[in-house]
Amino acid sequence: MTNKKEIIAGIIIIGNEILSGRTKDLNTSALSKWLNSIGIKVVEVRAIPDIEEIIINTVNELKQKFDYVFTSGGIGPTHDDITSESASKAFSLKYEIHKEAYKILEKYYKTNEFNEGRQRMSWMPSKANLILNPAGGAPGFYVENVFCLPGVPSILESMLPSLANKLVCGEPILNKTISLRTFESEIAKPLKQVQEKNKDVDIGSYPFFKKGKIGVSIVLRSREQSKIDKCNSQILEFIKEKKIEIVARE
Amino acid sequence: MTNKKEIIAGIIIIGNEILSGRTKDLNTSALSKWLNSIGIKVVEVRAIPDIEEIIINTVNELKQKFDYVFTSGGIGPTHDDITSESASKAFSLKYEIHKEAYKILEKYYKTNEFNEGRQRMSWMPSKANLILNPAGGAPGFYVENVFCLPGVPSILESMLPSLANKLVCGEPILNKTISLRTFESEIAKPLKQVQEKNKDVDIGSYPFFKKGKIGVSIVLRSREQSKIDKCNSQILEFIKEKKIEIVARE
Repeated sequence: MTNKKEIIAGIIIIGNEILSGRTKDLNTSALSKWLNSIGIKVVEVRAIPDIEEIIINTVNELKQKFDYVFTSGGIGPTHDDITSESASKAFSLKYEIHKEAYKILEKYYKTNEFNEGRQRMSWMPSKANLILNPAGGAPGFYVENVFCLPGVPSILESMLPSLANKLVCGEPILNKTISLRTFESEIAKPLKQVQEKNKDVDIGSYPFFKKGKIGVSIVLRSREQSKIDKCNSQILEFIKEKKIEIVARE
Repeated sequence: MTNKKEIIAGIIIIGNEILSGRTKDLNTSALSKWLNSIGIKVVEVRAIPDIEEIIINTVNELKQKFDYVFTSGGIGPTHDDITSESASKAFSLKYEIHKEAYKILEKYYKTNEFNEGRQRMSWMPSKANLILNPAGGAPGFYVENVFCLPGVPSILESMLPSLANKLVCGEPILNKTISLRTFESEIAKPLKQVQEKNKDVDIGSYPFFKKGKIGVSIVLRSREQSKIDKCNSQILEFIKEKKIEIVARE
């Protein structure tokens, strides 16, 4: 960690399909990686159902707790898409047609295709700022520090680049991974010692199974390359001593 | 929903690797599907970092809120595995060697391989009950209504069957999926009407993209097959009227 104030974020994944296990959540990973790259650290993710009261309470709790909150899901055209209305209530704002969003959608769909369901996607909290969809379709929106994005991973990802200039970014969080042919328990002791000597580097240890072979990935994370490098050489030392094979470095 | 008390659960995914986006969370999906099949409904998932205070607070909050809490991750041999110690503190229990777990691990590893790191996996909250690992390795454990499982998805999944007789199960949550060649906005209106007529069936609508073609899956969820069937035939009616192609039924 640097002395600069850390910028932290929370993610809210909205949707019964995640909680039922039907759909695997891919948006946390995409959002977190992207946020890391612009120096914003994700410190909590919540997956919650399509229930208005829960959405309102979770938005209200997390918008106090974090610099930024990103929601995913629930801004489509069907009855189970209730994020926009719930966000309006969380901010005590009117839920109404957003004129610019309406124009975008009207242009995107041919006149006879711009039906009630599609018009519904232009309803947002009053004074919401749009997050444009580069494919031209339904936009997301933000109010204060809460950014509401769609649930479909490819669409969510396509909307991230346009977000960057709307956020106060930090220093990117750098990382290095060393993958070893060993067991976690084999390196637990020396790795702990390295962590103790380098308290400001986040050192993670993750077992993996690839092509039937077991291994461990050590992940070093910090905002300062020099600290990662120092940590890395201390790890390489005990690896050499223990004659452990290095499988990959990233 | 039936009149029987619903049994609800929360999941805590513990690990910086999820929050950094490095690792996609597969355990929520595996746990939720399995819990659904034994009639336990997951209503919240939280992903949190490897920070003791946050683990303690989250465990304490969710164990009050839900019938059951399942944690995943942080029970391995390395310095970043702090779930057992944090759970001990959450329950104000001693963190000590669990004799049975120690014996299991001692037997599993040959004497000269049973090193400090591996011994660490036998440290648990005092009086913890074991959740056996069918492969013979490190067990999970539970205290009151909190069940602590490993983070590696294949190991977590292998431990679930032995859990069933430790839980008060409900009626399984049944589901039916109808996949259509259409757009969400095309069916939003009649689908909403079906939801209004069938308030006790949870109807979800999820767009999909398969082989370059767009479609919508409608998912019906209820504890009563007859209610799903009723809902299903109302949906088939409007699909027929609108001449929408059915792609798949599950």
